[in-house]
Parts: sequence; C-alpha cells; structure tokens
Amino acid sequence: MTERSHPIEVAKMRGDLRESLRDRVAVEEPLEIRLGYEVSGERHTRSVSITMRTPGDDEELALGFLFSEGILRSPDDVAMVKPCSGDNTVRVELESNIAVDLDRLQRHFYTTSSCGVCGKSSLEALRIQGAAPLAVINGQFEREVIVSIPDRLRAAQQTFDQTGGLHAAAVFDSQGELIVVREDVGRHNAVDKVVGALLSDGRLPAAGMGLMVSGRASFELMQKALQAGIPLLAAVSAPSSLAVELAREFNVTLIGFLRGNNFNIYSGEERIA
Amino acid sequence: MTERSHPIEVAKMRGDLRESLRDRVAVEEPLEIRLGYEVSGERHTRSVSITMRTPGDDEELALGFLFSEGILRSPDDVAMVKPCSGDNTVRVELESNIAVDLDRLQRHFYTTSSCGVCGKSSLEALRIQGAAPLAVINGQFEREVIVSIPDRLRAAQQTFDQTGGLHAAAVFDSQGELIVVREDVGRHNAVDKVVGALLSDGRLPAAGMGLMVSGRASFELMQKALQAGIPLLAAVSAPSSLAVELAREFNVTLIGFLRGNNFNIYSGEERIA
Repeated sequence: MTERSHPIEVAKMRGDLRESLRDRVAVEEPLEIRLGYEVSGERHTRSVSITMRTPGDDEELALGFLFSEGILRSPDDVAMVKPCSGDNTVRVELESNIAVDLDRLQRHFYTTSSCGVCGKSSLEALRIQGAAPLAVINGQFEREVIVSIPDRLRAAQQTFDQTGGLHAAAVFDSQGELIVVREDVGRHNAVDKVVGALLSDGRLPAAGMGLMVSGRASFELMQKALQAGIPLLAAVSAPSSLAVELAREFNVTLIGFLRGNNFNIYSGEERIA
Repeated sequence: MTERSHPIEVAKMRGDLRESLRDRVAVEEPLEIRLGYEVSGERHTRSVSITMRTPGDDEELALGFLFSEGILRSPDDVAMVKPCSGDNTVRVELESNIAVDLDRLQRHFYTTSSCGVCGKSSLEALRIQGAAPLAVINGQFEREVIVSIPDRLRAAQQTFDQTGGLHAAAVFDSQGELIVVREDVGRHNAVDKVVGALLSDGRLPAAGMGLMVSGRASFELMQKALQAGIPLLAAVSAPSSLAVELAREFNVTLIGFLRGNNFNIYSGEERIA
C-alpha cells in the first residue's frame, strides 16, 4: 500500500504554550521516469525525468508527463507501463512504431541559442508543436458550476486534510461533476496525474471539461491544459502574465482567484454563461 | 526598468455582478542561465538552466542557482556576470582556475541507475557533496522574533500587494531584521535570489540567520538552506516528509505553519529560545 502521508512527532507552539504531539506530513519522494523506445529495430531505454512527487498514481504521472512533453499522443502509443514504487521508478515502453524526438526530451524546446528566450518564443514553440486555438464551442460553464468546484475539490482531497501540505488538481464536466481528482506535493505533478488518467481512459482531448488547480496558474499549467485540449483552467490564486498571454492566444478560458462566490476571468469569457 | 507586474484587463465576477477593470498580474518569463568555464586553457559556454521566473535580480538568481547546485563556492569563483533582460539570458563566467563538474550540471546527481531513487539516496548525495550537520550554536532565535517575521515579510513584499501572485523569501537575523527579501513566481527562484545576494555580499555560509518562505517547505528549499549554511527554515505552510528528514539529519531547524502567534517545530528545537 502506497503511503501518501507519514506520522511524525512535532512540537506545536501556541503562543507561549508548547505541546508535543503526533501529526502527519505529506510524503515527498523522487520518481524517475524511464522511457523505452525503438530505433532501427533496436530498443533503447533512457531516463527522461526525475521529479519530487507524492507516491501513488505513478503510472498516470508518467503518462501525463510524457503526453504534456509531446512524446505520447494516444494510449495506443504505449506498449507497457511498469511502476515500481519499491525503487521509485516507472518504466514506459513505447510501441515499436512510435518515433521519439530526442531533442524534445531535453526540455529546451522553447529556446534558440541565437536570440535568447522570451515569452514570445515559448508561445511560438507551442505553435510549432502543433497546438491550435481551442474552439469556443467545446465548453460552456454556468457561473454557479464554477463557484461550486473549490468546495467539491476540497471534499474530495484525502491527504490534504491530514497534512495541509498537498496541491490538488481536478477535471470537472459542465455539470460540475469531478471526473478525476489527484493530489501531489507538486502542482505540475497533480496535473500530470490528472492528464495521465484521462489519457488512459481515452478521454483526450478533453473537450467540454474544466481543470481546477490549487494555488496559482502558471505558464506550465496552462500549457498542460492546452495540450490536453481542456478549454477552461481555474485557479484558487493568481495567474502569471505568461499564463494569461497563452490563454488569450490559444483561446483557453482562464479563471483566477476563485473563492466563495467570486472569481476573475482573464480570457475566454464566452464560455461562461 | 524591469517590470515585475503587468497591467491587464480582467472581468471580475462578484456573485451575479460582472465588472470589467484594469488589474495587474505578476510577470513570468523564461530565463536562460549560461555558464562560461575553462578546460585545458580553452573557454566553453553552456546553457545550464531555463527557469520560468519574474524578471529582476537575474544576476543573483543565476549566482544562487549555481551555488545551490554546487558549481560555485565563493564570489571569487566568478569572473563576470552579465544579465541581459532584453533577451532573458544571464551569462556567468567562471575564473579560469575553477573546475566545473559537468555531471553535476545534469541535475541527476541523486540517482544511480542500478538501484533506483529514494529519499535515502537524495540525502546520501548531499553527504557526498560535502554537506555536514549544522552546529546548534550557529543560530538562536526567540519565539517572539519567529512570530514577527511573516508580518515583516508581507510589509516588504512590493509586487505581491499588486498581484497576489508572487512567492517571497527572506533571510533575517536573530533580532528579526530582514537582511534580504526577494519575490518570484517560483519559490525556488525567490530562494536562489536570496542566496545569490548573500553570496555576492560575502555572507555565506549564513550562520546565525533564518530563511522564511511563503508556501510550503519542500526538500529542494531545505537543500538550498542547508547548502547556504542557514540554520533555520520557516514556512507559512506545511513541510514535506523529505524536508523533515533532511532537516533532522543535518540539524537544520524546521518550522512550519507559521501563522499569527503559532508555529510547529519539526526539527532543531534547541535553536528556539
């Protein structure tokens, strides 16, 4: 059984009072993702990522990560996934007919050595990868549904209640039903797990769905939403400038500061009824 | 002038009411760190990192990052730092007598391909890099000083007030004076900026100081504190399991849930008076 939180002794200071008690902390452990692929009839294996994550759903984390990086496009690309929680590795074997772009694995795809890097080149890189603006029609959400999501997400978070230390991500449909909820010490990992689950279920691109994340909306999270074809990203806290630019360019609805009955719309307001 | 926040049009939903107004968002842009070094009398340049950061203090960010990665040990190792905000790059030229461990630049130093990765191997890697437990004597903090830090940090945060979207890190002394405060969309970047500032000022190792961070305390932040010789890390939110393990093994004082008059001590209570 994978443990997502550990018991721990802690000294609690409440004003002048000191109390020693047993509490729980969220587990953080490294995970190595290894990719197996074929070139000219010969199989190769390569370590493509080490991320600090909360154990559990490692298979989905690996699949979601590889999908977001553009390595995978469909569950049919995958011959085998073998998570091994004992040594914190997960091995993804691609089908022999799947070509791997090794340059893309370097994660430096948004830079060119001649001109430096900028937000523009980050957006340009997404265009080169084939990302296209999402149609307005592939998602409509009532205001009441949007404001109901944070409470539903909190109710579904198992480990957060024990530790107060985990980020969460969830996809929901236009009725506000949570389709997949995942937790992790890293926000990007929580989103990768959600995307990996959708990929495994054959639900990508995820037209008509929304993605809710705890914390802020960064460029990286917006990029993951776009690549999964999710037309709406909602965050509890603030978006960054580049997340807003990306959302506007590719017509993703971006909601920030979603708290109580209130939220801000930074992009794609047409999808909010 | 470097802009840390951008003006932006936003639709604010307050219950049923919709209001369109001008707000500000924190700027997020990629930064490429290029390292120049000498091997056998010949100079080389290599891109060692691309990070999504808030512009400003790029020089400190690069120095702090390279220090945390174990590439730099002293400001004397650096021949030149050339930030170029125009193309989001910063170039760090090492002195010709400084040897660079290229393997370390791969950031895979805590894994061995034979046994997988685990928390234990992450701690082992720090030992191999020469990290040693910190002496209790190099820091003592009154309870009243600890609880005063969050308000002081908030007061010193310039961009957060405008955007609600930035993480902050600060080093403070035993009197509670803030020595360096930096903000960034990424917590690790904010800490790298602080460490880079201390390095430039010749204040590392930072004995007697504490490091306060917004958000949670992860393994990575604890690692940065340890490598900078900072004996106390305090976070607004929860620590992870691996941050606690690392703190206990290397005798760093770890404080979490620092809010109002209350906080939790996970390690190194001897430093709290």
